[in-house]
Amino acid sequence: MLQQIRIVLVNTTHPGNIGATARAMKNMGLAELVLVAPKHFPNEEANARSSRADDILERAIVVDTLEQALADCQLVVGTSARQRNMPWPLISPRQMAGQVFSDIAKANQAPDTQTPTMKAAVVFGREDRGLTNEELALCHYHVHIPTDEHFSSLNVAAAVQVLAYELRVAYLDSSQQVAPAWQEDWDNPWASGEDVERFYQHLEQTLIEIGFHDPNNPRLLMTRLRRLYQRTRLDQVEVNILRGILSTTQKAARGQKESN
Amino acid sequence: MLQQIRIVLVNTTHPGNIGATARAMKNMGLAELVLVAPKHFPNEEANARSSRADDILERAIVVDTLEQALADCQLVVGTSARQRNMPWPLISPRQMAGQVFSDIAKANQAPDTQTPTMKAAVVFGREDRGLTNEELALCHYHVHIPTDEHFSSLNVAAAVQVLAYELRVAYLDSSQQVAPAWQEDWDNPWASGEDVERFYQHLEQTLIEIGFHDPNNPRLLMTRLRRLYQRTRLDQVEVNILRGILSTTQKAARGQKESN
Repeated sequence: MLQQIRIVLVNTTHPGNIGATARAMKNMGLAELVLVAPKHFPNEEANARSSRADDILERAIVVDTLEQALADCQLVVGTSARQRNMPWPLISPRQMAGQVFSDIAKANQAPDTQTPTMKAAVVFGREDRGLTNEELALCHYHVHIPTDEHFSSLNVAAAVQVLAYELRVAYLDSSQQVAPAWQEDWDNPWASGEDVERFYQHLEQTLIEIGFHDPNNPRLLMTRLRRLYQRTRLDQVEVNILRGILSTTQKAARGQKESN
Repeated sequence: MLQQIRIVLVNTTHPGNIGATARAMKNMGLAELVLVAPKHFPNEEANARSSRADDILERAIVVDTLEQALADCQLVVGTSARQRNMPWPLISPRQMAGQVFSDIAKANQAPDTQTPTMKAAVVFGREDRGLTNEELALCHYHVHIPTDEHFSSLNVAAAVQVLAYELRVAYLDSSQQVAPAWQEDWDNPWASGEDVERFYQHLEQTLIEIGFHDPNNPRLLMTRLRRLYQRTRLDQVEVNILRGILSTTQKAARGQKESN
């Protein structure tokens, strides 16, 4: 589904921003870049800033007008730094990503051989003044990144990064995939309740032996220690380490007592 | 609340990335930047890439070690590109932002004149290889930006942009919401990075004295113990209890040695 999203940059001045856009796109799994009348392209600085995303630059299509860039798109989102004179449906990046994916999903669910595959475009304007009102009028939605009102001018590649990130998160959500890394594979099995209970008993016994804990005046000590270790969810290796420390501490304390 | 969040860059090589980080921060309403041993700073390219966010660069603090950068922070989030040998609680950028804001909101709701204002840090690593395992071990959470698995190396300023954006969205959401009722207030202030670091040093020293830990053959012992306690996020009373146990244990061990 990410392959059905096109990024469009209009009249980009600095080629470094085109390269950084390619890198941001590739990081987030997007591949299709269309450049409307860029000032310098192809360009060495664009390649350098793309890191190893130059395959996206090589496949980028250069056109003269935004109309050409959008000709085969069914859904167009334009980025807007501020409210214009003419009100337009203004959505957040998160709403934008949800909208794009629900539209793509609906189109893909009902394939129609008469219609080409659904394509959505997200359009970014010039470094100094964004998109014109005429260009924004070609869009179905305007998306606004919630910048600080006193410093609202985002770098264009940073804007691409934010929207590409939201698109990727929506994609991962919609495809019911959690990013694999978010599912923790712990390296050791978790300790059982029984093991942890034995650790608490060993801990309390040791604290009594070294004279830190008085069972006749327990106050909240053991409760606080239980809360600390319960919160962390101990694994088996950790329980073994902690009990090893306790045994060694007991030997030290007993050695001292015997020698007295 | 955004003023209570610090961005920390570790060993940044390219000054342009420092400038782009300052711009991304200011766009999102963040202001506090700490640089750990940057290669080139102050620097002209950093100023150029910051656009007009050079006030953030002027106020940026340069320190030698990550420990110094985190000394007064109660909550530390590290960015992690990949799963390490030893897994750590790994959260998404959105979970991270929610966690940071609920923690700051709770700390601010219960002001304690004894405790400094809650401060959270988000730490970003080197351009080529991120944060080391030792640096990640100083963090309470590891956050992973869900990049494409075949092209996962994000530009460091782009990573700052994504996380700063999520923090801003969480801030805008939280400032419109009543604090959720299900979040219980913690009874004690959280321990600072400095306090916890002193606890680890005390712990290691004690384990050596009782003969449980051999610094010449450390294996993963201290790493495992750090992971255990970082995961649980210690409060100030807990640190005091744990250090009290260590001092009492040292007395026991020293008593035994003296009597031998």
